[in-house]
Amino acid sequence: MPDASTPARIRVAVQGELGSFSELAAYEFFPERDVAICPCESFVDLFAAVDEGRADFGMAPVENSLAGSIHQVWELLVSRPLPVMGEILLRVSHCLISHPGARLEDIRDVYSHPQALAQCRDFLRSHGHIREHEVYDTAGAVKMIKARERQGDAAIGPAQSASDQGMEILARAIETQEENYTRFLVLSREPASLEGQTPLKTTVVGALADTGRRLPEVLQVLEEQEIGVLKVELRKRLGEPWAYDLYLEFEGGAEGPAALALECMAESCRQLTVIGSYPPGRAAIPRLHQR
Amino acid sequence: MPDASTPARIRVAVQGELGSFSELAAYEFFPERDVAICPCESFVDLFAAVDEGRADFGMAPVENSLAGSIHQVWELLVSRPLPVMGEILLRVSHCLISHPGARLEDIRDVYSHPQALAQCRDFLRSHGHIREHEVYDTAGAVKMIKARERQGDAAIGPAQSASDQGMEILARAIETQEENYTRFLVLSREPASLEGQTPLKTTVVGALADTGRRLPEVLQVLEEQEIGVLKVELRKRLGEPWAYDLYLEFEGGAEGPAALALECMAESCRQLTVIGSYPPGRAAIPRLHQR
Repeated sequence: MPDASTPARIRVAVQGELGSFSELAAYEFFPERDVAICPCESFVDLFAAVDEGRADFGMAPVENSLAGSIHQVWELLVSRPLPVMGEILLRVSHCLISHPGARLEDIRDVYSHPQALAQCRDFLRSHGHIREHEVYDTAGAVKMIKARERQGDAAIGPAQSASDQGMEILARAIETQEENYTRFLVLSREPASLEGQTPLKTTVVGALADTGRRLPEVLQVLEEQEIGVLKVELRKRLGEPWAYDLYLEFEGGAEGPAALALECMAESCRQLTVIGSYPPGRAAIPRLHQR
Repeated sequence: MPDASTPARIRVAVQGELGSFSELAAYEFFPERDVAICPCESFVDLFAAVDEGRADFGMAPVENSLAGSIHQVWELLVSRPLPVMGEILLRVSHCLISHPGARLEDIRDVYSHPQALAQCRDFLRSHGHIREHEVYDTAGAVKMIKARERQGDAAIGPAQSASDQGMEILARAIETQEENYTRFLVLSREPASLEGQTPLKTTVVGALADTGRRLPEVLQVLEEQEIGVLKVELRKRLGEPWAYDLYLEFEGGAEGPAALALECMAESCRQLTVIGSYPPGRAAIPRLHQR
């Protein structure tokens, strides 16, 4: 419930239900602030909520260490540009959640997001009698099994959503791979001043024709300006012959030598868009949030 | 029907039914030879057919200009290495195919591979009353509608499959984008001699940790040896934190300066595998094959 009498309160848009990893990322990014979450159904809604002033900030998940880039979000970063004020890497850890008093050996059906199910593959294999069912959202899965009140149902989701729904955690950290992080860019409406903020990093998106064969030129330009590359990714532009999207991140801001580099890059790389420059984020393990 | 009394006859494995684009690619790559096609259900079967000697050669589709790389084939190139003797780019052109005497205005249902349906999106939109149905194979779709004998059914597929099945072409070249090519690597069992074969190109696959940030080093090494890059693609290694697969192609063979470059590359790029060196292929428009 946003409260106009508390000026320190900020409204942060997240995609998904309350209790989602996006919500936890918001608390970790703004640890000192009174955060009011604005849940959004889709990424399009999330960008709109910030752009139209219904939220002050938005948590945009851009990639996961295991599953890769969330291309729909990258597309929105280009098509609906908003200032990026920072980033955070959130450790993703999954729990098996069921009704109070439930026992692991009684669980027959488990509900979660396909990616969460995939990330807990080893745990699910070693409990081979549990059938998997896909739903759109981890926190939503917990809410759903609670509402259905069926014994033998469980959900895979964050500890936070068990706490929010008064449900029980039957097993913690059931993900196969521990180095599971989701990286969020934090969107705002007004560009923040970068003065005195060091270090910085910059995110750009461009288009490469001809199966990426001009990528060496693009990277060469950064090398010449002694700018370190942080991320390179190429992704097919579906329907455009031999064309690829380029996601590129480098050290420092977009001014000075980087401005020169970007100018040269634009010769090898079409539709070059600077998504933003912002301070590199920290990796955080989400703490339980008391409502 | 392979015929042992004709020594010039070669057996070529393709994925899919007779009449597929893979079959046409085989005829275009071996225009002077008597080609006996070995149809394979899957790409795994195709690699096995060549490896186990049931076929002399195999047509492995590695990428399409519009849809991008066929990752399963790249994975097989690494996990089940076979000598690559060459490549060919085949122009993909789709026809709307139905029963003899059928009229376009009577077509109500169309069957094809999801990628073929997508590539004919504009045509299908301008004939909005036609319902789309996905099947696994374009040539298989033609065979299926023929067997079902239902008026109002059509398939999207190559002209060859209409000719093979005695069916009628109601519309030709219905794809939205003309620059639609599928590139095939031609696999063999015995490595061919590359002596005197110039020019050459080389295909390698490697793994990059850390969201591709060491890619500049990899490309720098080629630059230093004055080796031109032909293709760069990065693809997330699912389940491996921040890791990407690298598909890289460059001018020339894997010997001499390239051998030195590959040695240096191996420091920035793990699991480097040379898929093969072979003469660059031509682009071909498939001709109708008389059976």
